[in-house]
Amino acid sequence: MTPAYAALEARFRRLAALEGAGGILHWDRATMMPPGGAEARAEQLATLQVIAHEILTAPDTADLLARAAGEPGLDAWQQANMREMRRRWVHATAVPSRLVEALSKATSACEMTWREARKASDYACVKPQLQAVLDLVREAAAAKAAALGVTPYDALLDQFDPDQRAARIDAVFARLEAFLPGFVGRVIEKQAREEQPRVPAGPFPVKTQRKVGLALMRAAGFDFERGRLDVSAHPFCGGGPDDIRITTRYDEADFSRALMGVLHETGHALYELGLPRDWQTQPVGSARGMTLHESQSLLVEMQACRSPQFLAYAAPVLRAAFAPTAPADDPAWSADNLARLYTRVQRTLIRVDADEATYPLHVMLRYRLETAMLAGDLALSDLPGAWTEGMRKLVGVAPPDDAQGCLQDIHWYDGAFGYFPTYTLGAMAAAQLYDAAKRADARIEAAIAAGDFRPLLAWLRPNVHAKGSLLGTDALLERATGRPLDASIYLAHLERRYLGA
Amino acid sequence: MTPAYAALEARFRRLAALEGAGGILHWDRATMMPPGGAEARAEQLATLQVIAHEILTAPDTADLLARAAGEPGLDAWQQANMREMRRRWVHATAVPSRLVEALSKATSACEMTWREARKASDYACVKPQLQAVLDLVREAAAAKAAALGVTPYDALLDQFDPDQRAARIDAVFARLEAFLPGFVGRVIEKQAREEQPRVPAGPFPVKTQRKVGLALMRAAGFDFERGRLDVSAHPFCGGGPDDIRITTRYDEADFSRALMGVLHETGHALYELGLPRDWQTQPVGSARGMTLHESQSLLVEMQACRSPQFLAYAAPVLRAAFAPTAPADDPAWSADNLARLYTRVQRTLIRVDADEATYPLHVMLRYRLETAMLAGDLALSDLPGAWTEGMRKLVGVAPPDDAQGCLQDIHWYDGAFGYFPTYTLGAMAAAQLYDAAKRADARIEAAIAAGDFRPLLAWLRPNVHAKGSLLGTDALLERATGRPLDASIYLAHLERRYLGA
Repeated sequence: MTPAYAALEARFRRLAALEGAGGILHWDRATMMPPGGAEARAEQLATLQVIAHEILTAPDTADLLARAAGEPGLDAWQQANMREMRRRWVHATAVPSRLVEALSKATSACEMTWREARKASDYACVKPQLQAVLDLVREAAAAKAAALGVTPYDALLDQFDPDQRAARIDAVFARLEAFLPGFVGRVIEKQAREEQPRVPAGPFPVKTQRKVGLALMRAAGFDFERGRLDVSAHPFCGGGPDDIRITTRYDEADFSRALMGVLHETGHALYELGLPRDWQTQPVGSARGMTLHESQSLLVEMQACRSPQFLAYAAPVLRAAFAPTAPADDPAWSADNLARLYTRVQRTLIRVDADEATYPLHVMLRYRLETAMLAGDLALSDLPGAWTEGMRKLVGVAPPDDAQGCLQDIHWYDGAFGYFPTYTLGAMAAAQLYDAAKRADARIEAAIAAGDFRPLLAWLRPNVHAKGSLLGTDALLERATGRPLDASIYLAHLERRYLGA
Repeated sequence: MTPAYAALEARFRRLAALEGAGGILHWDRATMMPPGGAEARAEQLATLQVIAHEILTAPDTADLLARAAGEPGLDAWQQANMREMRRRWVHATAVPSRLVEALSKATSACEMTWREARKASDYACVKPQLQAVLDLVREAAAAKAAALGVTPYDALLDQFDPDQRAARIDAVFARLEAFLPGFVGRVIEKQAREEQPRVPAGPFPVKTQRKVGLALMRAAGFDFERGRLDVSAHPFCGGGPDDIRITTRYDEADFSRALMGVLHETGHALYELGLPRDWQTQPVGSARGMTLHESQSLLVEMQACRSPQFLAYAAPVLRAAFAPTAPADDPAWSADNLARLYTRVQRTLIRVDADEATYPLHVMLRYRLETAMLAGDLALSDLPGAWTEGMRKLVGVAPPDDAQGCLQDIHWYDGAFGYFPTYTLGAMAAAQLYDAAKRADARIEAAIAAGDFRPLLAWLRPNVHAKGSLLGTDALLERATGRPLDASIYLAHLERRYLGA
């Protein structure tokens, strides 16, 4: 390795260790930490972030980047690594350490208050802290916008999904808005005319739900030598490539939410577990961005596991676990019934429990509201009202309280503005990738019908996971599927699955 | 605050955050981490340690310490804080960052191998890694010895127990060696003549053991808003003052090991939970050292919870939990029988399961062996043999394999040479403090007989816990008990409890 490039790799190796430490501390806070630990944990996380920021913005980093760019003989991975190093450096140098620390502490404090606020459905009690977070996020967005030469919202997007821009989202969402409301109405009418799904009768003990979740994670390719499953209020996938931590929450009256949640997070985990081992401590070895990350969770959950093929495999497994005395032909446990249940379209209040068809409408609401908040066009005192109005217009139902409204998601309270659109872009990428995978290997669907995800993984590994951040999102999609992100495949999938068109 | 002193407080606040982060990562490694995470975790821990070392040894720290020493108006706590800052700085500057990193990585690797080696009773497989650790520890000890002006072994002791010296340990251990072997023989003879304890018949489900452990932790004053109980191969007390993490291990054939282990770790936890809140992020706010730390665990476990008073309270609680259908006068569950069980003296192989009377003999063996290893007088290839021979001489039994011999303890494999003596010094301090507490407040024993630890805690808080590192160990003991550490009270306790003298 050439000297400046080698020095940069050493520096980013140290940053990866700090990020990895922070990841476990975040996971611990959500899953294990007693409440008394909140203050010290906020200090720990802020300290790690500030130290990482100081390392990244050290006076000689610019010089090392410039010198390494002139060093001969860097291969494609090393060059891509340089590009990603520079990307992180530009983001970091745009904001002062003071702001990094203030944001870390404000989001830690706000997130802890949000947990209580959501329980009590008390938006007012968290509003001042959300305002503090929003003010700091706006300050960071403005600074990064200037550094990147983009709009403040694009600067936030770029943190979660490199090179993503609001102009593309606006175009995609306009297309969805033209399609979805009518589509959802037609699906609901169609499903009302058809046989109604039977909801299997509980209770479903947490212990059994966990056992089934672990078995299906294993079937999907999760490696328990390199990861674990725990419980948190807001399910997520954390940790790192060799120590991946997914979480879920259980409802003894309904096993399917935890089950589909576990499969969703398993998709995220498989991406992390499949990242290029040789580049684990370097920026180019990281997941590409949240659109691709979400594509992997939705590919597993929505594309694969809500398919009739997988449900034909899962139905007897679920019956044996949850209703061991039910007859084999019990209609509540048939694959057809489960398929009806898992593709039922309803106008509901909670994003994470929303079906595939209405989900993008939840995302569009959040996108509109967060762009308005960031632009200063929506005051936080007006957020609950704007939420209710938006839900009524887009989804067709309005929440009876803020717990089921603007308090339901952790994102804003944790400072994650500019994140929501990646859920829907990810859903499109998932449809596109699954379509390409099935065309590339005709055995994939049949294997999934036997609970065997190996052929699917064998395609995803080289085409997505092992690419890390070598390519941009569109370039990766183009190599893997023949074209950049394209909403048509997603819309065709929705029509086929829900209208049989 | 004066400027240089304030700058030092800010610097040590950052160090406390890094140490706190490391503490949780250590806990996680022992309790939660999947095996695949070992390599990244070692890198994370080493990085945190090296960064802390760099901060502590920054070129201007010496200047800040010198300037702050001349600043007027520092109160007693601030002056003590300065003294402790300087102590840490001297330890840190004695060793280069390279050695800090090498030690961190070598101990991480060795500890992971030790877990497998112990399971397989395969000393040879971990010996090369232990050699690497020992070599690095010797290098650090020599460097610190030069900086502190003490012997290498004293330099190691000083890390765990400030101002502790081998000369004091040699004197104490000589006294114990003159007393204990004969004493143990007399106790064993006496107990052989008396009624034999009945071992309550299991199995004792882990779930019940955990429930009882939690209830007794609560009775002893553990605050679950600021801590938790988990499982690990080697029980410990980790985390920090507002987020204390104790661990145990369960054996379904014998509830008493986990139970007494939990009470032991609860004693450690109560110390941490009672440290001075205003000084949490500063050196003076830390626990004084391992002798006092161990005194707190042994005060709770050995002095209080193995007393006839506490067992009179615990006996019906344990019977109700573990043998709900046993009659109230079942002799296996009488307080007298439990007292006989929990004060039974036996020549056994495992230190952590040893009784109060033979325990110091296990410690003395380790002290002899580790001083010899560090001096270069004992090669690692001769360690298993020296262990066996030492056990035979000191305790009177020899291990059939290394798992029950020199592989049983984590300490050396984790780089902790110079730690073992604090167990026995702590046992002495525990006897001395409990004796003083009972003299200061005559209600303490009666309250413990009712499962109420509040009077005991009310004495320990101001006299020990809330002192943090304000005083040295002997000064603290002198203020609290009227004299520095004194083996006589401990020996009198042993004679009274075991020979009824």
